[in-house]
Amino acid sequence: MEESFVPFRGIKNDLQGRLMCYKQDWTSGFSAGFRILAPTMYIFFASAIPVIAFGEQLERDTDGTLTAVQTLASTALCGIIHSFIGGQPLLILGVAEPTVIMYTFMFNFAKSRPDLGSKLFLAWSGWVCLWTAILLFLLAILGACSIINRFTRVAGELFGLLIAMLFMQEAIKGLVDEFHISGRGNPNLIEFQPSWRFANGMFALVLSFGLLHTALRSRKARAWRYGSGSLRGFIADYGVPLMVLVWTAVSYIPHGSIPKGIPRRLLSPNPWSPGAYENWTVIKDMFNVPVLYIIGAFIPATMIAVLYYFDHSVASQLAQQSEFNLRKPSAFHYDLLLLGFLVIICGLIGIPPSNGVIPQSPMHTKSLATLKHQLLRNKLVTAARKCMSRNLSLGQVYGSMQEAYQQMQSPQTYPLAQGLKEFKASSMGNIEGPVDEKVFDIEKEVDDLLPVEVKEQRLSNLLQAILVGGCVAAMPFLKMIPTAVLWGYFAYMAIESLPGNQFWERILLLFTAPSRRYKVLEDYHATFVETVPFKTIAVFTIFQTAYLLVCFGITWVPLAGVLFPLMIMLLVPVRQYILPKFFKGAHLQDLDAAEYEEVPALSFNRPSEREMSSRTASFADDGEILDGMVTRSRGEIRRICSLKLTSDSAAPIKEFKTFHSFSDKVYSPRVSELKGEQSPSPRVGGGKGPFSPRTGEVKPSNLSKTG
Amino acid sequence: MEESFVPFRGIKNDLQGRLMCYKQDWTSGFSAGFRILAPTMYIFFASAIPVIAFGEQLERDTDGTLTAVQTLASTALCGIIHSFIGGQPLLILGVAEPTVIMYTFMFNFAKSRPDLGSKLFLAWSGWVCLWTAILLFLLAILGACSIINRFTRVAGELFGLLIAMLFMQEAIKGLVDEFHISGRGNPNLIEFQPSWRFANGMFALVLSFGLLHTALRSRKARAWRYGSGSLRGFIADYGVPLMVLVWTAVSYIPHGSIPKGIPRRLLSPNPWSPGAYENWTVIKDMFNVPVLYIIGAFIPATMIAVLYYFDHSVASQLAQQSEFNLRKPSAFHYDLLLLGFLVIICGLIGIPPSNGVIPQSPMHTKSLATLKHQLLRNKLVTAARKCMSRNLSLGQVYGSMQEAYQQMQSPQTYPLAQGLKEFKASSMGNIEGPVDEKVFDIEKEVDDLLPVEVKEQRLSNLLQAILVGGCVAAMPFLKMIPTAVLWGYFAYMAIESLPGNQFWERILLLFTAPSRRYKVLEDYHATFVETVPFKTIAVFTIFQTAYLLVCFGITWVPLAGVLFPLMIMLLVPVRQYILPKFFKGAHLQDLDAAEYEEVPALSFNRPSEREMSSRTASFADDGEILDGMVTRSRGEIRRICSLKLTSDSAAPIKEFKTFHSFSDKVYSPRVSELKGEQSPSPRVGGGKGPFSPRTGEVKPSNLSKTG
Repeated sequence: MEESFVPFRGIKNDLQGRLMCYKQDWTSGFSAGFRILAPTMYIFFASAIPVIAFGEQLERDTDGTLTAVQTLASTALCGIIHSFIGGQPLLILGVAEPTVIMYTFMFNFAKSRPDLGSKLFLAWSGWVCLWTAILLFLLAILGACSIINRFTRVAGELFGLLIAMLFMQEAIKGLVDEFHISGRGNPNLIEFQPSWRFANGMFALVLSFGLLHTALRSRKARAWRYGSGSLRGFIADYGVPLMVLVWTAVSYIPHGSIPKGIPRRLLSPNPWSPGAYENWTVIKDMFNVPVLYIIGAFIPATMIAVLYYFDHSVASQLAQQSEFNLRKPSAFHYDLLLLGFLVIICGLIGIPPSNGVIPQSPMHTKSLATLKHQLLRNKLVTAARKCMSRNLSLGQVYGSMQEAYQQMQSPQTYPLAQGLKEFKASSMGNIEGPVDEKVFDIEKEVDDLLPVEVKEQRLSNLLQAILVGGCVAAMPFLKMIPTAVLWGYFAYMAIESLPGNQFWERILLLFTAPSRRYKVLEDYHATFVETVPFKTIAVFTIFQTAYLLVCFGITWVPLAGVLFPLMIMLLVPVRQYILPKFFKGAHLQDLDAAEYEEVPALSFNRPSEREMSSRTASFADDGEILDGMVTRSRGEIRRICSLKLTSDSAAPIKEFKTFHSFSDKVYSPRVSELKGEQSPSPRVGGGKGPFSPRTGEVKPSNLSKTG
Repeated sequence: MEESFVPFRGIKNDLQGRLMCYKQDWTSGFSAGFRILAPTMYIFFASAIPVIAFGEQLERDTDGTLTAVQTLASTALCGIIHSFIGGQPLLILGVAEPTVIMYTFMFNFAKSRPDLGSKLFLAWSGWVCLWTAILLFLLAILGACSIINRFTRVAGELFGLLIAMLFMQEAIKGLVDEFHISGRGNPNLIEFQPSWRFANGMFALVLSFGLLHTALRSRKARAWRYGSGSLRGFIADYGVPLMVLVWTAVSYIPHGSIPKGIPRRLLSPNPWSPGAYENWTVIKDMFNVPVLYIIGAFIPATMIAVLYYFDHSVASQLAQQSEFNLRKPSAFHYDLLLLGFLVIICGLIGIPPSNGVIPQSPMHTKSLATLKHQLLRNKLVTAARKCMSRNLSLGQVYGSMQEAYQQMQSPQTYPLAQGLKEFKASSMGNIEGPVDEKVFDIEKEVDDLLPVEVKEQRLSNLLQAILVGGCVAAMPFLKMIPTAVLWGYFAYMAIESLPGNQFWERILLLFTAPSRRYKVLEDYHATFVETVPFKTIAVFTIFQTAYLLVCFGITWVPLAGVLFPLMIMLLVPVRQYILPKFFKGAHLQDLDAAEYEEVPALSFNRPSEREMSSRTASFADDGEILDGMVTRSRGEIRRICSLKLTSDSAAPIKEFKTFHSFSDKVYSPRVSELKGEQSPSPRVGGGKGPFSPRTGEVKPSNLSKTG
């Protein structure tokens, strides 16, 4: 996307692009039939549970003014509208943690003002939303999204880690509270006697750690050795909601003399109970807000605008990564414009606004890619089988598959073609004449050759939003969830968001024992590990960590806390103008690849990377690989870079060698394996000391695990 | 050891053998200086904690007649005597779970008899010990230990798994009790109010699962990426006692209104409090036992004798596995004889007898091997450095190392020599003329070449026994340990005993999804996985499981439960005479290698195995490999067999192929890696489908992890 700031141009382009395929968005959605329900349910759970958790958080922080009812309502409403008239239908909307934090700041401010008070809080926040919307309109019209490429990892990952810290803080605060008299119950209740309070606290520990542990385990289910592939896949996809169910059930096991209030459970009014819906009529109070505050509302509004501009765009960006090979155009500007309108609506009916959420959005795209793959797969396999039954040669079989593929596709067919070529190169030599399934495992081949393609449509988004809306009606059931389970879930979200976050991985690298650093290379790892000197990595990471701590500190400041989004945005210019003064361009490239800069340093392994993306994109074992690719954190697709010895990577390699026998371990796995044939030895993978030839290739070992 | 049943011959041989090196046993012990304290502490903790746990268990099951004081006393006393006049000083003695179970059976029996009662229980058990001793004498004199080779895995591993089940049962029972009024306190105490009972139960859950989780984690510390090698080693070796400390400390965190009785802690009288030491004078009651019971005592005695004969010999055997390259002779018969005397002593002073314990005994040998390695290492490294400083060629450097090694050794030098040859073969080609440390990492090379050698002496055994005795004095401190922590520890012992137990691994294999079975081959795995058809494995395992369940069931039977050791011993003849009727000899060989049988089937990979033992024996990364070799379960050293295609392994391989693309995954890792060079692909390790050449080699992948 070229950077242009001509008013309205961005929006116009987006509209033109999306209108062309609007009809097809729906038709292809319905054409998928019932299969569409799989991605729908997957995303529904992924977005419903956090929204409920945020509801509980808001409920405590706003003395019950806002509850899970409002957060769910907002998520459902915005989701439905977006799925109908939104630009990018892959983008999932929802109430996000930053929104909750901003609203908490605003509530505390309002409460502290006698002439505003918590009574007028919603009315005032209505004004804030109004201002926010206006700012979003401006940004959209002026084409602010065209600089989206400047939102580099540095900012995004720092933001991600900040959110993780806030989650963890929430979890700990919640758990500690379980030991004390909750602010809202009557202190004379039996469950607030010291003994029962202590019991409740301990029970809470059991429940939350139970959920955290099992949820983390279930995420890895695809790699389990036991159970069928489909079962493992199911647990991996739905393990978290499943565990919430399980631990809620566990919380009902203690019985007999245990008072009803233990463990404490979600408390938010049913939507139909009085007081729960008064906020719908907030608009009539809006003019009771003193003018001074109406103007003052502009300050938080700028923050929220900045926040949404950043968050919404990044979420949308991650849902459209090039590795997904999307066919339909993006719509950053138009979506930002629409977001403005949504914010106004939410403001007027007194519910917290929603915006594009991470990681749900990229998760959504991924699940649709898996769906598309299944559809394509069936088609190709049948085609191939037909040929083989007619005893045709491998070449012809592939011809027919090529055809079948064409029928389902728009012209862009490069990945399959490429896969095909390569396949012939590797195997045609061995095979002549007719082939049969015994020597030629079609399904496996198809899996390996199929490119990632995404079922781009609006139906799944609409359905999941409707389901979220349904949760409002299901409130009586949601209220059975113990709060402790939610604290565990907060901790889970924090921990799950770490892997794949290069900032986090660099922090870990700092604490990794020198003798162990080679293990990082054996794992999934980003380019910088190989090409940037360790010292540089350290300095860069320490700077980033200091910045993070400042941001976190700010959120603790009573009033100024509202400014934290500014700190995040500030990183964009810092990255662009200040950092280059301290770091080599090539190193910055690898530590924080930004597409708007030249890419000389990385060029040497770009090709292998592009190859990767198309190959990694091939599926095996129920999309287990895609699962590995799309990390939960920011949802970006992991890169595995082959370790090539090049001019600029050679230097740091030399340095790495100074780690105890580091290079041996890295460089000669294959050599020692060949030795291993004669006699498997503890030194397999350990290399034969410095005498081993320097073949600069490392096999990304954990790929074999996924295979 | 040839099988001969000439009376006294076995004992005579043992005595002759051990007397020759008795003096050296002490001198070399002291010559090691302070370094000897490392293995001493390591074994002390490893044997003290379980003994305390068993004490608590006995305390509940015998209404406080026997407590941790007695178990500790017995362990210390027998340990000290054995370290002085015992045959094999590597053997560690202690009160073991089977003893506890037998004593529980005996107590329940005694209590149920009005004319015996719990008052005369100790006196009666004195008679049981007397009978047991007589039987042990007979066994020792008649050379029963010469058939020890017939104690194959089948029996040993079934025994191990049975113990694990009993541990787990103990842990669960204990945890459930935490929710109820403990049988021994006054039910009117405040901590037995419903609320506090519930609180105590929940607290117990937190403590025990906390201990279990952290202890299991700390065991894997050596593989951590963070912290220095020495720190990781320390945590891996002392993690469990460390965690017991930590969680005991945690149990003191709650304060204020929490009653003193929460959480419940170890209760056993201080050794100096009245009643604790009355059992020392049990001998005077022994003649008050009705004659009928004195004779009847013969029945449990036979069981205990069988148990000790089996347990003591196997423990001793595992402490002297050939992989340890011991220099000094074994003393099975003499040790059994001595055990008889120890049993009498324990019986007369009314404490439960001790016998050789697993896994402490092999752990002891291992820690002494590490010690020896450190001593040798220093010597050789200095020698090599001296040469290099004189710019000598690699050949000369090795010459000097050879010399230095000779000086410290008895003639047997094969392992180093062998290592050397091989090294030359692999690397001398690349290097000419003088070498320096840059190209030649001495320490690493020494680590790789040094064979396992064990510091065989009596000092460490003596010291650890004395320390255990010290625990009796430390009772007031031990009583600070919450019972919940011990339940967690029981569960830990159960789980830690599983890995390395082939029986358990076969059970898991049955539940492994066919598409995942290839992963077993990527891991450490025994021969049978490659050479025995899956169906045979399944049948064999199911039979063994059924047998295990019968044994477990028997322990539940009120009186007959005492017979369970018989069931274990019964497996020896079953294995030898009945199983061969149902399974091919070759298959039995691999499922349960027994040295007294011919070994045609296995011959093909024996050499590679012997090589293994000397090579696996080489150290790297603070003996991390040895740590991997000696499993906690029965402590045997793991074998990694290379997958060779041979007449009798070819068949099952074909069968394995029927698992979804199993064979592809197994057979062509290297092929696909070579592809991986050009473009790392998700199919690395997955193979290129049926077109890959069938090179029947699998690299034991996790060795590279340990490297």
